[in-house]
Amino acid sequence: MELWYTENHSKEAKFSIKVEKQLYSGKSDFQRIDVFESNEFGKFFTLDGLVMITEKDEFIYHDMIVHVPMATNPAIKKVLVIGAGDGGTVRELVRYESIEKIDMVEIDQLVVDVCREYFPHSTSGLDDERVNLYFEDGLKFVSEKVNEYDLIIVDSTDPIGPGEGLFTRVFYENCHKALTDKGILVNQHESPFYEEYQKAMQRAHQRIHEFFPVAKVYQVHIPTYASGHWLFGFASKSFDPVKDLDADRWNALGLETGYYNTEIHKACFALPNYVKKLLSEAVSK
Amino acid sequence: MELWYTENHSKEAKFSIKVEKQLYSGKSDFQRIDVFESNEFGKFFTLDGLVMITEKDEFIYHDMIVHVPMATNPAIKKVLVIGAGDGGTVRELVRYESIEKIDMVEIDQLVVDVCREYFPHSTSGLDDERVNLYFEDGLKFVSEKVNEYDLIIVDSTDPIGPGEGLFTRVFYENCHKALTDKGILVNQHESPFYEEYQKAMQRAHQRIHEFFPVAKVYQVHIPTYASGHWLFGFASKSFDPVKDLDADRWNALGLETGYYNTEIHKACFALPNYVKKLLSEAVSK
Repeated sequence: MELWYTENHSKEAKFSIKVEKQLYSGKSDFQRIDVFESNEFGKFFTLDGLVMITEKDEFIYHDMIVHVPMATNPAIKKVLVIGAGDGGTVRELVRYESIEKIDMVEIDQLVVDVCREYFPHSTSGLDDERVNLYFEDGLKFVSEKVNEYDLIIVDSTDPIGPGEGLFTRVFYENCHKALTDKGILVNQHESPFYEEYQKAMQRAHQRIHEFFPVAKVYQVHIPTYASGHWLFGFASKSFDPVKDLDADRWNALGLETGYYNTEIHKACFALPNYVKKLLSEAVSK
Repeated sequence: MELWYTENHSKEAKFSIKVEKQLYSGKSDFQRIDVFESNEFGKFFTLDGLVMITEKDEFIYHDMIVHVPMATNPAIKKVLVIGAGDGGTVRELVRYESIEKIDMVEIDQLVVDVCREYFPHSTSGLDDERVNLYFEDGLKFVSEKVNEYDLIIVDSTDPIGPGEGLFTRVFYENCHKALTDKGILVNQHESPFYEEYQKAMQRAHQRIHEFFPVAKVYQVHIPTYASGHWLFGFASKSFDPVKDLDADRWNALGLETGYYNTEIHKACFALPNYVKKLLSEAVSK
């Protein structure tokens, strides 16, 4: 027999992975969670039928969501991570000795429990003593914080289901308030290629742009996400991610990474014309 | 009914496009050619079951295979294009008034004939008076040239079937000989992600590196190619594509492009660590 996992990247384009077996299937109060074993990608898990991480390429996402802000401001001490139930973002953060505290707020405890069982590498940082795990609504959590974090990372699902609130104006406004005056907000920012993702990208950029004087977007090659062309948002109250990068300082840390390097850091903010156009249309609406 | 085109990106990962109808199917002496109509990508055509171009994203490939070398050396006058039967590469080249002559060598006339019928935008440059079309084996054609071209673009299929010879040592050696002392060779360089493509990328880089003092690789987001993470090779006898770029000079030409810009030009040569590692392994073999 053959077993294939299929994900619709748009209504009329889909991506399929041959599966050796399904390792887990469950349903939380928030979403459906499945874990699969494959030859091509190793283990991978999905939320409501969308790939979250695969063992083969999760390093790309987690490198780029963490090291870009950390290299921009190495003085970051207090970090809030929203979502990120697979643990990969925290795994990369705890490599920085300079970080004093990481609050991680994941709405769905089952995601963390399942990932602890099936993705021990990904979740290996969650027991670091600087990490505080909260199983709460990130939207509410951040609304109660003022001038507290140097960095907020929004490592969410797409803006449907439980991730929806993390793409709203009020959420970005609350993030701005929760950040210190040197604060940085990084979020997964969808994709520019397929129409539905493109719209989500434009909405996110438009809203972030309202609250942050610096609101940039950077791009990454993530083969298992729709179109493989994925974006992150970098917003801040003062730091410019390219001008303020001190490459020598980051390189002196000696962190080994599979995707990120300081050349990629500068390069990923250069965007294709069609993406620049979509972003400028979004803020002129 | 539903009709889906499916392409295997690896043995255990595949990509599918919903098709409205098949517009053409034929077989030349070299390969099978199919043309499809889709909502998501517009018209697209395949050779031996691999997507060559789609109306939606072909601009990305053609921008990046042409404008990177042309912006590096605006004095390019004589160009040899090998493969490129869809015409898109020549369409971008003929926008440069400074180019005096373009020899295009496509082994399979049927590809050009079919593309002229179904992709008039893509083939719109082929009747430019500076263009000479040869339906011959590019490998043989280039072997008979010495010190003749300022730029050779290898816009080939993958190294199986008719494209195989265009990935050999003798071919790259002949390209070197056919180029002037300021000559540039750009080739489609496969992908770093899936194993078979990765091997082809490493072989190509290893062989090009033997003959050219400058042998770099640059990356592009092409959603309809395997993994979406595609590479081009930039080899030359003297020019460095980043150091020798005069961005103001290219921008003064006023060419409108959907993907390429001079920031992307510099940025696309910054590669992820895992890709850099694969490339350095290839040349140390």
